[in-house]
Amino acid sequence: MLAVGRELLIGRTLNTNAQWMGSRLARKGTLFAEITTVDDDLGEIALGLKSCLGRRADFVIVVGGLGPTPDDMTLRGISVGIRRKLKPNKQALSLIREHYARRDQGGIEMTPARLKMATLPIGAKPVRNEVGTAPGVRLDIKGTTVFCLPGVPSEMKSIFKESVEPEIVKRLGRLYRKYISLRIEGIYESALAPMIESELRRHPGAYIKSHPRGIREGKSRIELDIAVVSEDRKKAESAVQIVREIKGAIETAGAIVVSERERVPS
Amino acid sequence: MLAVGRELLIGRTLNTNAQWMGSRLARKGTLFAEITTVDDDLGEIALGLKSCLGRRADFVIVVGGLGPTPDDMTLRGISVGIRRKLKPNKQALSLIREHYARRDQGGIEMTPARLKMATLPIGAKPVRNEVGTAPGVRLDIKGTTVFCLPGVPSEMKSIFKESVEPEIVKRLGRLYRKYISLRIEGIYESALAPMIESELRRHPGAYIKSHPRGIREGKSRIELDIAVVSEDRKKAESAVQIVREIKGAIETAGAIVVSERERVPS
Repeated sequence: MLAVGRELLIGRTLNTNAQWMGSRLARKGTLFAEITTVDDDLGEIALGLKSCLGRRADFVIVVGGLGPTPDDMTLRGISVGIRRKLKPNKQALSLIREHYARRDQGGIEMTPARLKMATLPIGAKPVRNEVGTAPGVRLDIKGTTVFCLPGVPSEMKSIFKESVEPEIVKRLGRLYRKYISLRIEGIYESALAPMIESELRRHPGAYIKSHPRGIREGKSRIELDIAVVSEDRKKAESAVQIVREIKGAIETAGAIVVSERERVPS
Repeated sequence: MLAVGRELLIGRTLNTNAQWMGSRLARKGTLFAEITTVDDDLGEIALGLKSCLGRRADFVIVVGGLGPTPDDMTLRGISVGIRRKLKPNKQALSLIREHYARRDQGGIEMTPARLKMATLPIGAKPVRNEVGTAPGVRLDIKGTTVFCLPGVPSEMKSIFKESVEPEIVKRLGRLYRKYISLRIEGIYESALAPMIESELRRHPGAYIKSHPRGIREGKSRIELDIAVVSEDRKKAESAVQIVREIKGAIETAGAIVVSERERVPS
């Protein structure tokens, strides 16, 4: 994911778009290799895109900067990054006209600012935006599919669900995920570490991650996440066994497992 | 900023650390060139760091992955990225022993998990952590200062305020920032765009960014941010003039400026 927008760099806005999209992908058993945020700047957007393309990812999802104002320069940045000129796109224009017609502004003048939203890098295709004005954009570049989505959360979510997620899922195939979180009290991370190591030796490929949550009433509190993702439903279920084993070790050490809950399944 | 942790990629955790640090820096008149999040993975951490160093930044701040558990592998990843071996660091060891002594665990055994937190790339220096166990780490690499901080927010904030921010401010010098936000009703972004363009022509270097906030009761709502940063206090104050001019244009177009507020000054 390449997020574009200074508001994210200066802490004006929390990147809830990344969180939303990341958790959608996780439910399907996959994840972003990288989430990068850059400034509203041609060179930065170009650099960010080139770096993503250099990873030979299946998908790059660019979020933000598709609107009519001068601070929105994602498509220009991409055009610099991939050295393809920008050109008004007929299909994008008609999507924008359709949008204004839906808002009872059918005869609205196609000013430079409005035309900008339909000016795409050569070879790009617009993607329908049911919620806002600026269409999404799709580009295929040497095996990587680049989707550009608006940063407005409602628009981003709508286009992602309609046009991006189905294609990711199709290319990915069906994956099963079992993801369990434990809340533990009375053990320090440094004492938990060898238990985790022993589980990872027994279950290579499992994801086991501890999140320290501070000390309350003299007791160290930790959230421990255990997840297994697999094409094979039974293999994903091995997360349950890991949980059983590690709970045994934790309780033997005199600590308490306060709660156990399954995170949203795929 | 290089944030390390799968919890950020799968939407389990919002990157509030980036927001906090970004807003601290913004108040001092500067900003992250890039915020990148990668997985708990040696290769990913190494790649992320190399990409940051390639920018020849003054500072790279790496956050997360310094703890004793196996999922914490930031220092190993960095050691791969910069090709410097890891070695137990005496100063780091004594900081860790001090920490346990403060917690009345003075005689605690130095297990491999605990020793890990004191095992740093050659040439690195530990940075005191007043809140938690794992010290921060400082490395100077060809003109770039790399700070590694724990991901636990209280620890990250403490080390940032004590040891990172003062050094950034020292190198940066005193900058003034004037940052004003307007809430506007009754104008679409596409109509606002030419007004912003005209202001940017009159005030090059100013930051003017519009954030659409949807449509309520048939009226389009926008938050418009105007900021100027400068070594010269008077120049920073030109943001006030931009606001005056753009308010005039907005009101002439029949829209309403609902509120105007200054964002936290530096």
